[in-house]
Amino acid sequence: MQFEILKKDDKSRARLGRCRTAHGVFHTPAFIPVGTQATVKTMTPEELRDMGAEIILSNTYHLYLRPGHERIRRLGGLHRFMHWEHPLLTDSGGFQIFSLKALAKVSEEGVEFHSHLDGSRHFITPEKAIAIQEALGADIIMCLDECTPYPASHEEAERSLQRTLSWSRRCREVHRSFDPALFGIVQGGMYSDLRQKAVEVLTEIGFDGYALGGLSVGEDKETMVRVIGETAPLLPENLPRYVMGVGMPGDMLEAVREGVDMFDCVLPTRNARNGMLFTRSGRMTIKNAKYAEDPSPVEPGCPCYTCRNYSRAYLRHLHFAEEILSFRLNTIHNLHFYLAFMQEMRAAIAEDRLDEFRQDFNSRWKPTVEPERNPNLTSLPTGKRISLSARI
Amino acid sequence: MQFEILKKDDKSRARLGRCRTAHGVFHTPAFIPVGTQATVKTMTPEELRDMGAEIILSNTYHLYLRPGHERIRRLGGLHRFMHWEHPLLTDSGGFQIFSLKALAKVSEEGVEFHSHLDGSRHFITPEKAIAIQEALGADIIMCLDECTPYPASHEEAERSLQRTLSWSRRCREVHRSFDPALFGIVQGGMYSDLRQKAVEVLTEIGFDGYALGGLSVGEDKETMVRVIGETAPLLPENLPRYVMGVGMPGDMLEAVREGVDMFDCVLPTRNARNGMLFTRSGRMTIKNAKYAEDPSPVEPGCPCYTCRNYSRAYLRHLHFAEEILSFRLNTIHNLHFYLAFMQEMRAAIAEDRLDEFRQDFNSRWKPTVEPERNPNLTSLPTGKRISLSARI
Repeated sequence: MQFEILKKDDKSRARLGRCRTAHGVFHTPAFIPVGTQATVKTMTPEELRDMGAEIILSNTYHLYLRPGHERIRRLGGLHRFMHWEHPLLTDSGGFQIFSLKALAKVSEEGVEFHSHLDGSRHFITPEKAIAIQEALGADIIMCLDECTPYPASHEEAERSLQRTLSWSRRCREVHRSFDPALFGIVQGGMYSDLRQKAVEVLTEIGFDGYALGGLSVGEDKETMVRVIGETAPLLPENLPRYVMGVGMPGDMLEAVREGVDMFDCVLPTRNARNGMLFTRSGRMTIKNAKYAEDPSPVEPGCPCYTCRNYSRAYLRHLHFAEEILSFRLNTIHNLHFYLAFMQEMRAAIAEDRLDEFRQDFNSRWKPTVEPERNPNLTSLPTGKRISLSARI
Repeated sequence: MQFEILKKDDKSRARLGRCRTAHGVFHTPAFIPVGTQATVKTMTPEELRDMGAEIILSNTYHLYLRPGHERIRRLGGLHRFMHWEHPLLTDSGGFQIFSLKALAKVSEEGVEFHSHLDGSRHFITPEKAIAIQEALGADIIMCLDECTPYPASHEEAERSLQRTLSWSRRCREVHRSFDPALFGIVQGGMYSDLRQKAVEVLTEIGFDGYALGGLSVGEDKETMVRVIGETAPLLPENLPRYVMGVGMPGDMLEAVREGVDMFDCVLPTRNARNGMLFTRSGRMTIKNAKYAEDPSPVEPGCPCYTCRNYSRAYLRHLHFAEEILSFRLNTIHNLHFYLAFMQEMRAAIAEDRLDEFRQDFNSRWKPTVEPERNPNLTSLPTGKRISLSARI
């Protein structure tokens, strides 16, 4: 993988970049749609490309359990399996495993857990997490890290960080090649000193890129922006910085200003399936009675397939009818929104007007009035609420 | 609506035809995908057109209840609402109402029933069924008929037929225009004399086309083909004949040979969502373990998007993952299969080789080995099995 900074913003730490992988190029700042089970829900690869997606993410945890990484390898690898012959990133599975805390047992050696599918027992070590991802064949793979819960005391966060650091060392040991690229993940909770320590050790080990993990786990926005703002500048200038599991458009904008290059989040796709649609003035809930006979598109002027052809009234009808086309049309709109947003951000950086872009965005965006459900909390079928990354 | 016979087969009663409607042309014999709630499940109109669909069906019952026919009319009509500016047929709602027998009360005046959505009470008369369909604005609309249950005694079937005939007269009374076209529905159970009587009365009233209703309701194949074979030739030669709720490719082929022009059925779309895929040699169940690592497409040589790009292994994975893309890709394949089948049938009629086409089809098609679940039986959420048209 080769990362190149094409331009630096003069009023912030934002950068415009281009990343070459074995399966093609993607531009940064980049939004990475999440394709959990070897599919970005509802979307074909052609549709994703048409709307500007250049890189997608798939989850190792899920694919390891079903259909299995060796099976995918025998079938020619994940790109071929899912018909996405473009840049592809896999995560290590760590976050999902840790999120299902009740079912996981951690030791220095690795993580023992039980499959959510059939209860079978599994043991993942850093070495195995790398082997699985190599079998899948992504272009960028991630270290196995321990996801520090939130909140955590300084002592807990430090202990957790030590585990991540020793596991990262082991991942690097078994994966010395440049292709796929291996990213280290900076943990340390919300503690500046721990985050700094993490950066020091990871950069000393030496990775092809660096992610910030353990964010968007329940902390407030200000804390998240602080941690990003303190940590990103410490990372090597000429390697990509990736904030995992983030986020709302405004969050990504702030992070980009702090020098972040890559983001992944289920928000646009999950919100879509729940009838929540992104517009320049904030999110709208399509089921709202006021749209029952609204002939206009979700966002007048939006060039996406959904807005060009369908009314809010129809989308609302499909929503209540629980039709699959509802999920599709909403996903098309939301992903288009996210990808167009990033593309406009890149253009703004290229043309030295990121500040204007930001002011314009902030002047129009209204946060949702209803109480914001923490996107990282979700319920197990038992109804028990656990902390689960927005990445699942 | 204008129907024109372009060619007649010399060895059977099959005809090649073309039907002009206010929203364009469709060719017969035609397969009509079912779009129950103003959407053919999972598919966009563009995709349907690309695979050769020229006319689709939408269900009045569902749209009357939600979002309401007057709402759709105010929004510009059903074509515009669902972004299908092509030939469109609506049924009268009769079948769905009658299928929910436990909830419906029939009198000469009309049918009182309770909404399956919210239990609210409604009363549909023949006049209202016409008014609803006119509000929706389809190109072809159907009379309100009483769906004779199966089995039924001769006396029951006759009584039921009388109701259909008097309702059909009332439908014609309130809808004298040619546009939309109004089709009468031939009932009479499996009784030749009643079917003949039905044709006599309906043709005397005079409709723009004639459907055969009350088939594929549990009777065996031989009975169904017999009734079609006895009834179709009695209908006016130069008007379209439409068998509702049918069926398997072989069924349609036999019916075409008896002079039928139009068919609708949920089979390809519903089977798709259940992981059952049509091939020239019969249906296959994608979840079968033998496909777990099968790199080949569902049908080698099939030019549909699914077969061009995805393996059986991937489709099987998506099926177990319960991914929306599974429903999409399977639907694309099955609808392509059905529409290509009809298109090949039309070409065979045009080229005087329908007989060869039929022999070739029959030599390759193997009926499903597992016990054939009657496609017309389905379960209410209560688990109570009721007779429900494959058209729902």
